[in-house]
Amino acid sequence: MKLYDGGRAPNPRRVRIFLAEKGIEVPLAPVDMGALGHRSAEVTGLNPLQRLPVLVLDDGTVLTESIAICRYFEELHPQPPLFGTGALGRALVEMWQRRMELNLLMPVAQAFRHIHPAMVEWEVPQVAEWGEANKPKAVEFLSILDRELAGREFVAGDAYTVADITGLVAVDFMKPARIELPAGLSNVRRWYDTVKARPSAAA
Amino acid sequence: MKLYDGGRAPNPRRVRIFLAEKGIEVPLAPVDMGALGHRSAEVTGLNPLQRLPVLVLDDGTVLTESIAICRYFEELHPQPPLFGTGALGRALVEMWQRRMELNLLMPVAQAFRHIHPAMVEWEVPQVAEWGEANKPKAVEFLSILDRELAGREFVAGDAYTVADITGLVAVDFMKPARIELPAGLSNVRRWYDTVKARPSAAA
Repeated sequence: MKLYDGGRAPNPRRVRIFLAEKGIEVPLAPVDMGALGHRSAEVTGLNPLQRLPVLVLDDGTVLTESIAICRYFEELHPQPPLFGTGALGRALVEMWQRRMELNLLMPVAQAFRHIHPAMVEWEVPQVAEWGEANKPKAVEFLSILDRELAGREFVAGDAYTVADITGLVAVDFMKPARIELPAGLSNVRRWYDTVKARPSAAA
Repeated sequence: MKLYDGGRAPNPRRVRIFLAEKGIEVPLAPVDMGALGHRSAEVTGLNPLQRLPVLVLDDGTVLTESIAICRYFEELHPQPPLFGTGALGRALVEMWQRRMELNLLMPVAQAFRHIHPAMVEWEVPQVAEWGEANKPKAVEFLSILDRELAGREFVAGDAYTVADITGLVAVDFMKPARIELPAGLSNVRRWYDTVKARPSAAA
């Protein structure tokens, strides 16, 4: 298999962190997204949506969408479980993965894409007002998350999961999106320091 | 258990269709979203994000996020499988569920929320330019979907799955969002007529 990787962008990084946590090595095909390599004929042929990462299996089957790729590896290599265990545990991890993605990573990404000058060819049209509207959405969610994290170590419970990966990537992406982590969110800060200190965070 | 339901809104409907396909009956607690019932103290206490649906288990555990709720029922009642079978099958359903959600349901919902006058208290601020920018995104994805559906009956393969549910709900939501299904997308039209004709579509 081969993983078409997109470097520093948040979604490719989610998959690399996931693989690092699992201890799985997959051959990478680097794509220069800064040079719009994700819109090349090769990548478009694999993924008409022109997004990365893309996993190509040995039989040519193409898998896209970071979380779908992660789930595939979870099925092949169940240990350590990063999507939860048991019916309720798996549902709760899914809930928190989605909450972190839809209410944190996505607003942060929207702020970046609609405001940052480097994104002018990526997001057409850039709507600065929409970008700005996303900043308080991300901050408001972080306040809710802070109250949740008062009672547990990780986002979805007592174990590190894919929800933590999405959260780590989202918080790190706040820097280029120019959103500051509000002071006083001590539980979020403690959680972030914990997940950022894991070796996988360097992936 | 009890399912806090939100009537005609797309996400509550996704869960109701899923339950209908599974033949599962869950007691519903109707919430009047038109009267902003999802922002009541009761719902906010269950889901600080103030979104529906919300599933409350007999022990008080709260599950939110439509797809997490669906996955919980899939775990409890595996037949018929609506999240795919086998490692690759499950990954492909996840991929298509996400594609239908992120590239169709979400743009349609953004167009609705940022343009429709009834949404002025829901989406603050409404950014009409962003709403309009989403209409061509939805239409472009439908063209890609049409090419994909040339070779198979359902969104993720030869079996009806949760990806079809998200797609059906998204296409039906195009009407209030005032986005027309482009003429000529004969595969999308054939697929839509098939999934719309299932009894579950009335849920």
